[in-house]
Amino acid sequence: MKFATEYLWFSTGRPREYINVTKEVARIVHNSGIQEGMVLVSAMHITAGVYVNDAESGIIQDIDEWADRVAPKGPDYHHHRTGEDNGDAHLKSLLIHHQVVVPITGGDLDLGPWQQIYYAEFDGQRRKRVVVKAMGE
Amino acid sequence: MKFATEYLWFSTGRPREYINVTKEVARIVHNSGIQEGMVLVSAMHITAGVYVNDAESGIIQDIDEWADRVAPKGPDYHHHRTGEDNGDAHLKSLLIHHQVVVPITGGDLDLGPWQQIYYAEFDGQRRKRVVVKAMGE
Amino acid sequence: MKFATEYLWFSTGRPREYINVTKEVARIVHNSGIQEGMVLVSAMHITAGVYVNDAESGIIQDIDEWADRVAPKGPDYHHHRTGEDNGDAHLKSLLIHHQVVVPITGGDLDLGPWQQIYYAEFDGQRRKRVVVKAMGE
Repeated sequence: MKFATEYLWFSTGRPREYINVTKEVARIVHNSGIQEGMVLVSAMHITAGVYVNDAESGIIQDIDEWADRVAPKGPDYHHHRTGEDNGDAHLKSLLIHHQVVVPITGGDLDLGPWQQIYYAEFDGQRRKRVVVKAMGE
Repeated sequence: MKFATEYLWFSTGRPREYINVTKEVARIVHNSGIQEGMVLVSAMHITAGVYVNDAESGIIQDIDEWADRVAPKGPDYHHHRTGEDNGDAHLKSLLIHHQVVVPITGGDLDLGPWQQIYYAEFDGQRRKRVVVKAMGE
Repeated sequence: MKFATEYLWFSTGRPREYINVTKEVARIVHNSGIQEGMVLVSAMHITAGVYVNDAESGIIQDIDEWADRVAPKGPDYHHHRTGEDNGDAHLKSLLIHHQVVVPITGGDLDLGPWQQIYYAEFDGQRRKRVVVKAMGE
């Protein structure tokens, strides 16, 4: 059995940002030598997400606006009694989900033609990370 | 270590449709001979979902109406500048999530009594697929 | 290859409740002797969720209110024709998602500093369970 574990670090310029990490995840899988298995890509923060969708700039803007409509910034969340102001980012993380599992087949990510893996930052401008863990044979 | 990888194809008659794939996934697991492990069921398209819930027709209708309330068809999504008209289907895919992992215990899907695995088509009437990947021993 | 499978039982006092299961999941992983791998934590019911987020009481209240705003209790869901009254709990389960996968690295849960694993009960006051399945080496 083979394993590979790497951490991707991010420090976005904007509070919310969407970063395509597909190539990084593919590189980790290729370096692992795993031919068959699965790779988990999981945010290590509670105000960020990881999702699979399209690398088209319009849909990325739609995702951003939609997440902010369903889980709006600003309202007086109970969480803000702690001095934080990022209650919305916690809810956006739940909405988008914080992780995906990608199958590895024949040594490669087994994704559909338009599927790309994205890191979704909902409370950025600080150092944050994603764990990528591959396992298989 | 054992692996099994199969692709399920769909071509729905309606734009949105919900298809119970539990038996297909169980068949793949049984054929693999895996006694202990996990099976990933993951849509390979960015306008479809895979979820676990009830096989009751009323709740399926509720899920459909709810997804369309939270991520409505029609509004002028930025994504539509590309000529597409399926922005809502991308957001519904994120809302419902595009994959589930089912534990395999004693050679069978380890699901609760009412849990069924569904493929959720949000932009149908074309050929689309789901990857089913089991791994274990 | 090593496996560990355990079931956590819950019977909440209130209809909706959020229970931190991180220590239980860590105990199962430690007992398994698995050093590298993944652990799946998955609700076995269609009216419950499992998520990773903060153990702060304000945000837990925010999550509860938000889930009830996006998938409100009460409306006359089609599912209620069966005699049930928990249509909202099915939708909340889909919104929050019913499972997470946690990487195991060096024999421990590989979580970020604020990440805690929660069982989210959306239709409680009855016996329900979660499957915890670890696999690795």
